[in-house]
Amino acid sequence: MRIGVLGTGMVGRTIGSKLIELGHQVRMGSRDADNEDAHAWASGAGNPATTGDFADAAGFGEVVFNCTAGMHSVDALDAAGADNLDGKVLIDVANSLDSSTGRPPTLGIVNTESLGERIQAAHPEARVVKTLNTVNCEVMVDPAIVPGDHVVFVCGNDDAAKAEVKGLLGEFGWPEERMIDLGDISQARGPEMYLPLWLRLMGPLDTIRFNIALRMAPPG
Amino acid sequence: MRIGVLGTGMVGRTIGSKLIELGHQVRMGSRDADNEDAHAWASGAGNPATTGDFADAAGFGEVVFNCTAGMHSVDALDAAGADNLDGKVLIDVANSLDSSTGRPPTLGIVNTESLGERIQAAHPEARVVKTLNTVNCEVMVDPAIVPGDHVVFVCGNDDAAKAEVKGLLGEFGWPEERMIDLGDISQARGPEMYLPLWLRLMGPLDTIRFNIALRMAPPG
Repeated sequence: MRIGVLGTGMVGRTIGSKLIELGHQVRMGSRDADNEDAHAWASGAGNPATTGDFADAAGFGEVVFNCTAGMHSVDALDAAGADNLDGKVLIDVANSLDSSTGRPPTLGIVNTESLGERIQAAHPEARVVKTLNTVNCEVMVDPAIVPGDHVVFVCGNDDAAKAEVKGLLGEFGWPEERMIDLGDISQARGPEMYLPLWLRLMGPLDTIRFNIALRMAPPG
Repeated sequence: MRIGVLGTGMVGRTIGSKLIELGHQVRMGSRDADNEDAHAWASGAGNPATTGDFADAAGFGEVVFNCTAGMHSVDALDAAGADNLDGKVLIDVANSLDSSTGRPPTLGIVNTESLGERIQAAHPEARVVKTLNTVNCEVMVDPAIVPGDHVVFVCGNDDAAKAEVKGLLGEFGWPEERMIDLGDISQARGPEMYLPLWLRLMGPLDTIRFNIALRMAPPG
């Protein structure tokens, strides 16, 4: 599949590399088509990926990953252009982390809104699916590095888009029974607002490679 | 131990009953000392608990539980009075759920602040410990109804107060290795902001008796 990856940070590079490993065609997009991180990544040994600006990468993809920093995602997707996003599955893995308030960061979009919703509102014809934002990028693309039946959340308005995203999550190694479908894109408030807890668990757990598993009382 | 339980809702009654079962002396406090729920609960067969207004219950307790609805907790603790709270361990299990915005509720205190912090700021001489707010009250007082090594979070500025609270959590059945100490009271933002995810998991999990367990990659 042709996949556009917007964002050249650790998340974009990790997802891009995994998609290539899985046999997909990848174009990585950045604000500036001459982005050095993107060129360095794409020139790695045996890396067949191409690079471009946000519009190039989004236009290339049949599916588009938003791996930009959450506080800049709406601008990045504006730059990508509605023509390059409309009708496509747009997978939003970002968090609106705002470090301007100190450490740990707060959320820039929160509580009565979510980044996933804001992206969907800005691009009503894109098929936005929020997922993977609750784990570090190494865990996103290789959940087996964390033992146990830990979970990933999926939210979006378009059931066919969610099914397609679940297929990609399966390629990453997520078993279907560990993909928790929370409903429409407004439900993204849940997994996005989990981030402040995630940020506070890194220290006590002494790792960023962790995740949560769900435990329930038996029925009745 | 003499324990004041502020709040006559499901959470206060469940925690109060458990404390009695454990042999503690309990006084339940409400805005109005003639609260019918409190009287009905305290007149249950074999229930030695007493009731009163917020100030009566806080004054009675060597330790005080805040089980009031989060949006009213600061007012309730003002009514309890600084003289009845200063120097005491004040265990805050509440969430600032705000249903005025529709369902599911949003949080009334969030992101750059938390209910735990606001209570500590209003009562600087109380030894506030935030805990248990991430699970339903049945799970709070009987974690074994949910199988597996699911966790509870503890935050507060006073280490001795946290140690005392961990002792009570142990009496409720929480093993010490499953009590995650997140640090000072400002860390309450993490477990409080988990609530929107909790609210969205009830449906898919088809129960309110659930919790999260932590899974980590092995070191290195």
